[in-house]
Amino acid sequence: MTTSIALLGTGLMGLPMARRLLGAGHRLTVWNRDGSKAAPLAGDGARVADSPSDAVNGATHIITMLTDGAVVAHVLFETGVAEAIDSGATVIDMSSIQPSQARAHAERLSKLGVFHLDAPVSGGTGGAEAGTLAIMAGGDREVFDNASAVLGAMGRAIRVGPSGAGQLAKLANQAIVGIAIGAVAEATLLVSEGGGDLEAFRAALAGGFADSTILQVHGQRMQANDFAPRGRVSVQIKDLDNVLIEARALGIRLPLVEAVRDRFVRLMNELDGGNLDHSALFVELLDLNGRKPAPRV
Amino acid sequence: MTTSIALLGTGLMGLPMARRLLGAGHRLTVWNRDGSKAAPLAGDGARVADSPSDAVNGATHIITMLTDGAVVAHVLFETGVAEAIDSGATVIDMSSIQPSQARAHAERLSKLGVFHLDAPVSGGTGGAEAGTLAIMAGGDREVFDNASAVLGAMGRAIRVGPSGAGQLAKLANQAIVGIAIGAVAEATLLVSEGGGDLEAFRAALAGGFADSTILQVHGQRMQANDFAPRGRVSVQIKDLDNVLIEARALGIRLPLVEAVRDRFVRLMNELDGGNLDHSALFVELLDLNGRKPAPRV
Repeated sequence: MTTSIALLGTGLMGLPMARRLLGAGHRLTVWNRDGSKAAPLAGDGARVADSPSDAVNGATHIITMLTDGAVVAHVLFETGVAEAIDSGATVIDMSSIQPSQARAHAERLSKLGVFHLDAPVSGGTGGAEAGTLAIMAGGDREVFDNASAVLGAMGRAIRVGPSGAGQLAKLANQAIVGIAIGAVAEATLLVSEGGGDLEAFRAALAGGFADSTILQVHGQRMQANDFAPRGRVSVQIKDLDNVLIEARALGIRLPLVEAVRDRFVRLMNELDGGNLDHSALFVELLDLNGRKPAPRV
Repeated sequence: MTTSIALLGTGLMGLPMARRLLGAGHRLTVWNRDGSKAAPLAGDGARVADSPSDAVNGATHIITMLTDGAVVAHVLFETGVAEAIDSGATVIDMSSIQPSQARAHAERLSKLGVFHLDAPVSGGTGGAEAGTLAIMAGGDREVFDNASAVLGAMGRAIRVGPSGAGQLAKLANQAIVGIAIGAVAEATLLVSEGGGDLEAFRAALAGGFADSTILQVHGQRMQANDFAPRGRVSVQIKDLDNVLIEARALGIRLPLVEAVRDRFVRLMNELDGGNLDHSALFVELLDLNGRKPAPRV
């Protein structure tokens, strides 16, 4: 069976993902609500569709890369898309949405004979351009296996469980990132207040038990007082809120997520930090300690 | 000048460190309070001394690898060692002690014309055997440079600042480790309660922003319910207490360290977990959520 892919949502992430799919030799139709963001892909060999239901016509794999669960639900179920998808085709939702929403979408599509994978990603626009995204997939193993050539063009895909598990893994990923930023902020404050050299500190820890990308990358941003947004505080809060919604649904408490979430909220509401990079939790910690950030290096 | 090294304390860490020094061709004298632990090194070419003051006689570099600050102070200043050290020699204290103690030792030795580096390590017995320890050194740059051949035989040494900064970096290292274990515990609980595959979850995150040695190593221990001690809960608490003592001395608060420290204490006092591996913070989180650990895999 020839693979024919539709990609709905050619924003910051979807655009480079589309280019990776074309580069791997896939037949691709794209659609975006703001058509001007999809138009450039015509030059790369994509067909640019006028409507999402037109885009999915005849596709074996339908990739959605949209803002949130509400937008995914709207595009799939309120624009004629679900009905226009061929029976036996697979929807691969790579947007970051709630696990419960992903499971609901899988169920609704299943009644139409359409398969579903939730497959959110980590790695940002750099990973999307390089085709090195970490793809966390939830759904039936057979459906996952049948989508491997499509997913493989965009990154390293691993099936982490049944429907919804991909979104759950993404939430757990975001929980670790948020708490790790808090840990690195405290280590950075301790070393700098004690007169240590922060750059040498990070170099000394490289490769050890306390090392992480967050230590090296976000720790450097804290030292440089450079909080231009790559991962925005407001988005980090949305992610942690989603973690806590899911935790409540599962009947569990996650005390560190709760504590860090409240501090990101304080950073946004009391310190006007909503549009800063999430490494600016360091600024909140400084404030908590009656200290001001050093002048920008 | 020929390097002649004395190493005081040939325990779990000091013994393989001594072997690395001998392997690098250094002349080495060793001493240990329980002499039976030093005796085997005679077979590797070390001179085994009867007393610490005998051991340091004529040494250009004196390495201490002892239990804590009190023991280091006792051996250096109450057994005749400080007076027996040649003027111009360097004491390299690789024990993990308080930064304030390290600064005090440096000052006292300085009055005798003896140099001092605090140079605690990370990497465990495996790193000591392989000569790949992460060595975080505090002290004057010249003194550090003059000790580079000695330190280089045991691992990768980086000067992180003036006297005390090595100990400070080690504390910051331990703070990150403790909080990271808490983060991985919450991610692990979330994924497992939501029906995800934990092994696939860790594989999916490998190389990404949320990845760390703690996720891969301690996350696996949590999944396997395998809490045989490598890093003991009681030691993790001692480390975090030392972090908080130093933070108080600096006039700062570290809220995540405080929160995680209290939970390790609860694990020790209420759940009898003092002798478990520090990854057993997962057991405390399970208990907090009214859940029991799965049977040992």
